[in-house]
Amino acid sequence: MSSPVIDRFDLFTIVFNIIISIIGGIVVNRLIPMLKEKFIKAQLWGYDLNKRNSKEIKVAESQGVIVAGIFLVLMFIMIAIVFSEHLHPESDFPNHKFVEYLAALLSICCMVLLGFADDVIDIRWNVKLWLPMIASLPLLLVYFANYHSTTIILPKPVRPYFGQQWNLGILYYVYMSMVAIFCTHAINILAGVNGLEVGQSVIIAGSVLIFNLIELQGICAEEHLFSLYFMIPLIACSIPLLIRNWCPAEVFVGDTYCYFAGMTFAVIGILGHFSKTMLLFFIPQIINFLLSVPQLFKFIPCPRHRLPKLDPALNKLNPSDVEFKKKDLKPLGWLMLRFFSLTKFIRYREYQNNDNETMINTTNFTIINSVLCWFGPLHEEKLSRILMLIQLVFGSLLTFFVRYYLVRFFYDS
Amino acid sequence: MSSPVIDRFDLFTIVFNIIISIIGGIVVNRLIPMLKEKFIKAQLWGYDLNKRNSKEIKVAESQGVIVAGIFLVLMFIMIAIVFSEHLHPESDFPNHKFVEYLAALLSICCMVLLGFADDVIDIRWNVKLWLPMIASLPLLLVYFANYHSTTIILPKPVRPYFGQQWNLGILYYVYMSMVAIFCTHAINILAGVNGLEVGQSVIIAGSVLIFNLIELQGICAEEHLFSLYFMIPLIACSIPLLIRNWCPAEVFVGDTYCYFAGMTFAVIGILGHFSKTMLLFFIPQIINFLLSVPQLFKFIPCPRHRLPKLDPALNKLNPSDVEFKKKDLKPLGWLMLRFFSLTKFIRYREYQNNDNETMINTTNFTIINSVLCWFGPLHEEKLSRILMLIQLVFGSLLTFFVRYYLVRFFYDS
Repeated sequence: MSSPVIDRFDLFTIVFNIIISIIGGIVVNRLIPMLKEKFIKAQLWGYDLNKRNSKEIKVAESQGVIVAGIFLVLMFIMIAIVFSEHLHPESDFPNHKFVEYLAALLSICCMVLLGFADDVIDIRWNVKLWLPMIASLPLLLVYFANYHSTTIILPKPVRPYFGQQWNLGILYYVYMSMVAIFCTHAINILAGVNGLEVGQSVIIAGSVLIFNLIELQGICAEEHLFSLYFMIPLIACSIPLLIRNWCPAEVFVGDTYCYFAGMTFAVIGILGHFSKTMLLFFIPQIINFLLSVPQLFKFIPCPRHRLPKLDPALNKLNPSDVEFKKKDLKPLGWLMLRFFSLTKFIRYREYQNNDNETMINTTNFTIINSVLCWFGPLHEEKLSRILMLIQLVFGSLLTFFVRYYLVRFFYDS
Repeated sequence: MSSPVIDRFDLFTIVFNIIISIIGGIVVNRLIPMLKEKFIKAQLWGYDLNKRNSKEIKVAESQGVIVAGIFLVLMFIMIAIVFSEHLHPESDFPNHKFVEYLAALLSICCMVLLGFADDVIDIRWNVKLWLPMIASLPLLLVYFANYHSTTIILPKPVRPYFGQQWNLGILYYVYMSMVAIFCTHAINILAGVNGLEVGQSVIIAGSVLIFNLIELQGICAEEHLFSLYFMIPLIACSIPLLIRNWCPAEVFVGDTYCYFAGMTFAVIGILGHFSKTMLLFFIPQIINFLLSVPQLFKFIPCPRHRLPKLDPALNKLNPSDVEFKKKDLKPLGWLMLRFFSLTKFIRYREYQNNDNETMINTTNFTIINSVLCWFGPLHEEKLSRILMLIQLVFGSLLTFFVRYYLVRFFYDS
């Protein structure tokens, strides 16, 4: 704390960032009601299936594109401000810093385009899976250009067996690509309840923001400043969307928002050099992904939708389920079913059908359904609140506990 | 020619670029028929108004997003290849070159997003007008970082009066912003006839390509190499679209294509340091813009559409027109009407209406209508061919004449 690591100009840019982010948030807040009819007219709408009168109201979809558009405009202005101190001919322009901003925005912009195109024309899932990897290529090049360190420090307990550090080489770049793919899709998989996509994103962004503020005192101040510049407008532009997407939803966010927020986190994790901490913030998403694996990879039959289903009498949501013949289940599928049943993530039962075959009825493999298994039928808003709480506890608080307390047992400070 | 300015690695990248561009073109050619039904289902379609059976067939719109998407994928791969020679830890990574690629792709990607959003939800014209300027901010920063020369050399004839050179300072950046805005919209304004948008873009891109190949021998080889890398995939991906958009159009290109191609030219002109030559390639677009000014800025009434209108009996197109009372015309509007009438770009006549007021009936102020005034009613394909010829002669051939012959009278070689 003795020598200030961020200077007065940095403070000015942070204040400037906050001001334009608030303005951006206000603009988003005005644009959503202005434009939603246009979206509905352009066939960008859906029914809110978890409501009693679901088939009566068309809800505008893809409102994330408004958030992303304003976010990009803010970031273009931010770049100009951040580098304005070097705008005199004698200054040595810091291209190594500049490439980070450009590569970050390029990857984000590509994912916004992909998400919006997906909302409009439904892109095939295998294309969607790999495009984030291609979009992350410039990031990897920037990482190489600026750091090209691919060495990881091993935790103390395993050092006697595996040594002090490992140089992962090319595998480190593969890892970073995977982070980009995972983050882009993670939010999109944990979705389908009003407020969930934006809510989790705001909680993650808020946690990253707090993490950056703490680390701003440290030796990597510049990287955390970089992250701050992205997180503040992300939060400011997302909050108006969160309010309007909260139960009962006035608008939907679309794949656009999920890809946009996901890629922003990936980019910041990679270029801010805290991809592992970032992944800790994604623990609920990681668990949800692991839980989804049996259905995503067809070990267990996967219905078209795995959203909870409404009990109109109670106006509460029940876990949705899927039924299949027990004999169709492969050994690995059976093992997964048993494992997630023992760990209480799903609930299944067996029964005989009319043809005297043994049938299995199981709740679908998502965290959303797990919550409904644990707590019983819930109103959608309550479900959303519980999911937010999970994000806060198992994403954010746990990460800070690991990062600032547990870490001392595994690494030298 | 004595010392090679491009080395073997550059030759390899050019060959690689050509190969992946051809593959990209083949992919675009397969994707368009695969996806067009999806576009129509997503309400992205229009009627082909210049056809006899226009209201019977829905034609898929916005196919430019396919071209732009594949183009971006190709460019991401190209970046990785171009900089692969620096992918060893001892190499000094050329960040100053890298920022050019990233800023270029960022501006292009933003404009593709804007174009696609415009196709889907119709963005207000004043937003569309200024967004290219914001999207060009990173380009200006890159220009500053890498060159920050804002001095222009004056032509010889005016030097005795104005001096050898002028330092335009900030005005030079304003000029570059204007180039970005102009190029982005120029193609979109000269549009509406089957094949016209892509056709003019392919001719401009081909001309830029030839110009780059000639200049590749010179001292600015690196900048022309940069331009080549963008032009080859642009041409390769556009040709399949041109074939399917040529009269009678199987698909439409959308604002997406116009903004995408326009911004690509702007970016290349600015970062390749031949923005003035680039503008020469846009002479038909500039004339069309100047011709449109009276209607765009409401000196002359401007109908919603200014496309030619079909004479179903002949299956030929006539110039479209607009009628208004003579007394509503302001002096400046009258002057413009007279000027473009004398220069034969429009044709107007006066008559008395039933209320005994003097009315004016004039053809609309676009090059497309001018061509129909000059040649009489034309079949749409013939009209398109003539417009291509104009682009070739007054855009490309004239530019090469100015650039390689006339220039010697104005500048020292």
